[in-house]
Amino acid sequence: VPIPLADIAARVGATLDGDGALPIARVATLHSATSDAIAFLANPRYRKDLETSAAGAVIVSPAMARHSRAAKLISSNPYATYAKVAQLLHPRAPVVPGIHATAVVAQGARIAASASIGPRVCIGENAVIGERVSIGAGCVIGDQCEIAEDALLHANVTLYAGCRIGARTIVHSGAVIGADGFGMANEGGRWIKIPQVGRVLVGSDVEIGANTTIDRGAIEDTVIGDDVKLDNQIQIGHNCTIGEHTAIAGCVGIAGSAHIGRNCLVGGAAMIGGHLHIADGSTVSGGTPVFNDIRTPGVYTAVLPTLPHREWRRMASALRKLGVAERAQGDGTHAASDAAEHPEGEQ
Amino acid sequence: VPIPLADIAARVGATLDGDGALPIARVATLHSATSDAIAFLANPRYRKDLETSAAGAVIVSPAMARHSRAAKLISSNPYATYAKVAQLLHPRAPVVPGIHATAVVAQGARIAASASIGPRVCIGENAVIGERVSIGAGCVIGDQCEIAEDALLHANVTLYAGCRIGARTIVHSGAVIGADGFGMANEGGRWIKIPQVGRVLVGSDVEIGANTTIDRGAIEDTVIGDDVKLDNQIQIGHNCTIGEHTAIAGCVGIAGSAHIGRNCLVGGAAMIGGHLHIADGSTVSGGTPVFNDIRTPGVYTAVLPTLPHREWRRMASALRKLGVAERAQGDGTHAASDAAEHPEGEQ
Amino acid sequence: VPIPLADIAARVGATLDGDGALPIARVATLHSATSDAIAFLANPRYRKDLETSAAGAVIVSPAMARHSRAAKLISSNPYATYAKVAQLLHPRAPVVPGIHATAVVAQGARIAASASIGPRVCIGENAVIGERVSIGAGCVIGDQCEIAEDALLHANVTLYAGCRIGARTIVHSGAVIGADGFGMANEGGRWIKIPQVGRVLVGSDVEIGANTTIDRGAIEDTVIGDDVKLDNQIQIGHNCTIGEHTAIAGCVGIAGSAHIGRNCLVGGAAMIGGHLHIADGSTVSGGTPVFNDIRTPGVYTAVLPTLPHREWRRMASALRKLGVAERAQGDGTHAASDAAEHPEGEQ
Repeated sequence: VPIPLADIAARVGATLDGDGALPIARVATLHSATSDAIAFLANPRYRKDLETSAAGAVIVSPAMARHSRAAKLISSNPYATYAKVAQLLHPRAPVVPGIHATAVVAQGARIAASASIGPRVCIGENAVIGERVSIGAGCVIGDQCEIAEDALLHANVTLYAGCRIGARTIVHSGAVIGADGFGMANEGGRWIKIPQVGRVLVGSDVEIGANTTIDRGAIEDTVIGDDVKLDNQIQIGHNCTIGEHTAIAGCVGIAGSAHIGRNCLVGGAAMIGGHLHIADGSTVSGGTPVFNDIRTPGVYTAVLPTLPHREWRRMASALRKLGVAERAQGDGTHAASDAAEHPEGEQ
Repeated sequence: VPIPLADIAARVGATLDGDGALPIARVATLHSATSDAIAFLANPRYRKDLETSAAGAVIVSPAMARHSRAAKLISSNPYATYAKVAQLLHPRAPVVPGIHATAVVAQGARIAASASIGPRVCIGENAVIGERVSIGAGCVIGDQCEIAEDALLHANVTLYAGCRIGARTIVHSGAVIGADGFGMANEGGRWIKIPQVGRVLVGSDVEIGANTTIDRGAIEDTVIGDDVKLDNQIQIGHNCTIGEHTAIAGCVGIAGSAHIGRNCLVGGAAMIGGHLHIADGSTVSGGTPVFNDIRTPGVYTAVLPTLPHREWRRMASALRKLGVAERAQGDGTHAASDAAEHPEGEQ
Repeated sequence: VPIPLADIAARVGATLDGDGALPIARVATLHSATSDAIAFLANPRYRKDLETSAAGAVIVSPAMARHSRAAKLISSNPYATYAKVAQLLHPRAPVVPGIHATAVVAQGARIAASASIGPRVCIGENAVIGERVSIGAGCVIGDQCEIAEDALLHANVTLYAGCRIGARTIVHSGAVIGADGFGMANEGGRWIKIPQVGRVLVGSDVEIGANTTIDRGAIEDTVIGDDVKLDNQIQIGHNCTIGEHTAIAGCVGIAGSAHIGRNCLVGGAAMIGGHLHIADGSTVSGGTPVFNDIRTPGVYTAVLPTLPHREWRRMASALRKLGVAERAQGDGTHAASDAAEHPEGEQ
């Protein structure tokens, strides 16, 4: 049901400029919005879309307000305001309590009466499922797992035994939490598996993307801090710790025993080597491999410029010559060599 | 059952050269083929294998025909002809209609009588399943999904609510379609989730590989065009559009709001940054990150030459010096910086 | 239950130095160990932790023994000895024979009486499940699959029809084995699917990580040798062969028809192009793309140094100029071009 614009302004803490009675039914892009929709401008690059938008209302910064004749919510952080407005207009479906008849619940599991357990879910022995938790169809929850209140697991998530999921955390389909870390020792050319006896502890308000994998610790625990946001297809090795509020985009690989600080940003398809420390507040650009500690916050990058293939061949040829001509120097590149020679995680 | 070579020639539109009565039972490689098998030569590099093959029949181009004494199907496009022959000799198993007793079908779902719904499948409210659709064991189909005729979902696929799959499209196991895009706004160091209200619309004749993920749109829809081919473990962010006939190899990451044109080829483990436009007919080489629009079709590449580790250390040392010595210039590398600083998707 | 240190020494073949009656209950890190725990030192970098550890016992090399006053197991390969000790102290749970009432077993399947088939497992026609095999909840085993004795499939694994898993092999959740390879031929701008009629043959003592995918062969089989160790989110294309004892870290992509030798190490997020041969005993560093055969064992690397963003911009600018200024030369970089132009697998 539509909400009057003035009510929205009040509930999200934005300044109203225009007709507060205007009923707003949904969010839309500036480009496609109609008169019952609210759109936003966070990036000045799209200012022209703001000027020509048919949106009934827009969310803008004070500096951009004069570029729109629509009703406005004015905010110093339009993107955050938009997030709140979208939550108001598109709330999550309420959790319908109950355990589906096809779910398999092992003995000793404790499930809050307000929780929703979907079809074909399996819940292991002595697992604890909190208030208003929602577990989608086909999820497998291992023995002794604990899932705190208001967590949401979409369909087909797998939790190995002993893992913990914090309050309000969202886990998307296909995620696997708590599989064995990649630990083995070599003896005479053969591998000996090292039992992975740690757990995965996931904090509150975390989001874990589809098909992301987080391995259990080898000895101690792998720890994901509160309010960490993980996109799809991220791999987090055993013993890693990820600090609070850090956001990691899709396809990132983090090798075992890496420690990522708080409030970091890691771009898509970046790669963090094992045993590294990344300082609080660091940004790693998309596509960037990191093989040394980052001790000073800042933006760190390592991607080649993308070239037409003919130009690339010239560049690659020149680079090969650099490998032959230059004298090796102690230059901090040693860690990549270590990574090559010791791919297995330790401790 | 074997098929006479002349029948095969007629059904695939190739020119027969040799004994049309020869019964052909299966496809094989040139190297391992026996007299009841048909092999092909698409790459002249394997010509020697053609000359020595024991295959009963071979598929070759006119130029290569003289290099084999076997019976031949001659075609200007031997690889395409091989594809058709293989489909004849190894047809897909017929769809056995029916809903398995262990499937869970919600109210309002409409399932064609000719469809096959496997064991333990869950189908959500008001979902629509078309004629001869086959849904493998353990799949979860969200509310309001629509799956068009002759689509094939292998086991353990997950579709979130509201997604559409086109006719004859194949989805492999572990694929997750329609999970929330990676959208959140930062306010004072904390993240606020942005509801992802778009859908994923997948066209006809698409193939989606195992464990590939395609996120739903933030506001509008993520759109995969007809005849798009996606290999395994590809990540496609929210709001992306992929043009018809484009093929993308495994492990590629495509960040949010990227627009890939028609008839593009993207090599394995390439990475496309957010908000980019890739022109129709472009080729991105394997392993190549792309952080700027591609406006002119062509082959684009960015991979380092792989070197023995000692040579690499010299090259890396020289590259570091380039970072210190060269003066920065406006050179089109700005977008990677943007990607680092604004990892979240917008609009 | 705790085990006396002398018993542990005897069972793992290490030299005891200290109180053999000391009861050891579990493994721990040097840093967190208490008097009932055993820790290890494999990397001399952590020697200080050894000196200050409160561990009841430690596993060390002869050279390090003098740096600890704890009881000791002395071994020339402390990491391998640690692996064996951890297996003693943290043994795998015994397999509880039986087929769960919610499992769906097709006709003709043969399941050993000692095997454990979990809830909601589906087993296809004529599949063969060996002695003491454990199949976790939600797994889907295709028709004609064969799983040898003592193999362990964690929850939600998918095996397509006809695949084989060797003895003692472990497969983690979300892994998909036997999906169609990425094979299609282009005809006039449209793609024609090539049936993938090979299988996946996985050897004995293999470990396959969470959400790893291994495609079935196009014509012949994809083959994973004995004692191969695959981490999470690895993609292995059709027709690949991986030699015995090779270990591959997370997020690696291996394109179709690549042949990786025995006893190789491949670092995380490396990428191996199609149709390549990698010599026995080779090491590919993390993050390294490989587009040419590796014929001589050694360590091969191709990663950019990671720089503060401003320095990176200078380096990238200089690299672009190399593309313009240098003359192209026959330099072995041709294969990357091939990879771009022929992304589809052949034969």
